[in-house]
Amino acid sequence: MISLFSHHFLNPPVANPLPGAPFTLSQAQSHITSSLLGPRISFHLSISPVNYLSTYTGPPYDYVVLSHCIYYFSSPSILPSLIKSLTPHTHSICIAEWSLHSSSKEGVPHVLTALLWTMLESKRQVESMGNIRSALSPAQIKDAVGGEGWQIQKEALVDANEGLRDGYWEVRDVVGSREREMRGLRGVGEKEVAVLAAMWDAIESSLLGVERGVDGVRCMDVWVGIFKKE
Amino acid sequence: MISLFSHHFLNPPVANPLPGAPFTLSQAQSHITSSLLGPRISFHLSISPVNYLSTYTGPPYDYVVLSHCIYYFSSPSILPSLIKSLTPHTHSICIAEWSLHSSSKEGVPHVLTALLWTMLESKRQVESMGNIRSALSPAQIKDAVGGEGWQIQKEALVDANEGLRDGYWEVRDVVGSREREMRGLRGVGEKEVAVLAAMWDAIESSLLGVERGVDGVRCMDVWVGIFKKE
Repeated sequence: MISLFSHHFLNPPVANPLPGAPFTLSQAQSHITSSLLGPRISFHLSISPVNYLSTYTGPPYDYVVLSHCIYYFSSPSILPSLIKSLTPHTHSICIAEWSLHSSSKEGVPHVLTALLWTMLESKRQVESMGNIRSALSPAQIKDAVGGEGWQIQKEALVDANEGLRDGYWEVRDVVGSREREMRGLRGVGEKEVAVLAAMWDAIESSLLGVERGVDGVRCMDVWVGIFKKE
Repeated sequence: MISLFSHHFLNPPVANPLPGAPFTLSQAQSHITSSLLGPRISFHLSISPVNYLSTYTGPPYDYVVLSHCIYYFSSPSILPSLIKSLTPHTHSICIAEWSLHSSSKEGVPHVLTALLWTMLESKRQVESMGNIRSALSPAQIKDAVGGEGWQIQKEALVDANEGLRDGYWEVRDVVGSREREMRGLRGVGEKEVAVLAAMWDAIESSLLGVERGVDGVRCMDVWVGIFKKE
């Protein structure tokens, strides 16, 4: 029995309702549904995992996979809440998330951008619907999951598939929305605004080292970890 | 006639009263004083340039050089004030400062560290005596100087001399003072603390790509610019 939750379907970005590359999420969903395992897979697209699990009485899940979802969370406290609600229902949690580490210089702009989006989110009065609202590092993820009684069994940094365009999209968007975002910082102190501006400039300047500039940006590395109950 | 001001002598760090590599500041001062030009050079070590210039009635300076001083400023508004006070007394301003850009992966930790120190400074109730309190990008420096009626004539990014240890010192110190700095963040919101922690983790993880880790950190590139009055 497999249950899949997708933030993308809960909150489709208006400009890009079926995002994803090299395959969109709806292509991936069709592919999964029409596979041999398709009949055993349910997609839950209109309920959060915490709400779903609060009334769940079925058998435990062999594995719970959190795949590139943490960055979407509106605050760092959501991860431990989610883990707490999962804990009674599984013995294994597998996580894949961006690592805030790039082994190539083409991925450095993506690292800086994830940090800048998270900083901007921390200044907002009203939560955004952005793709990156809470970039947590592997160490922060391990702390949060470990704090709910889980122990890491195995972890690794892996290169992002070259076809993934997330790094390019995020860097392009953070550079392109600079003026609008700066206008939204009214009320934020002079020193804090200055360091955000410096961060934007550092991102733009990191593109100097990338062949074809923003078009040549690669994704940072992916961190994967497997947790078992202590 | 040459006047030299040094922040280092005004505010000697306790642990390292004569900092500098490959030569300390006092070695550099002796070298300059004993040179052929020595008799024409004055060191002003106990007065700020703004105070000095407020009563200065001598002939204009041919060049004013601001060499790696901006990062020490306690806030981004000090640079335009300094430029304003210099403007009546010279026709050329030459600036050298860290660029927030690294052409080597060994310099990326220095870029991230300069941004993190500046973020930490922006949260302090009481100004620190840190080496990096206000990292401004070349674009921010050009805006500030340009805003006082100066036009950039020439600019370049140059590799930092391999003997310079500033990058190593700053990265070592920001990593080593993490616990103390985190304790100082009481009262700062959860989201802002989380992104600062993510920044520290990104710095530590950027050391994975550096041979010999923190010991192998290089300085980021230096930005140099020459300004003339409009």
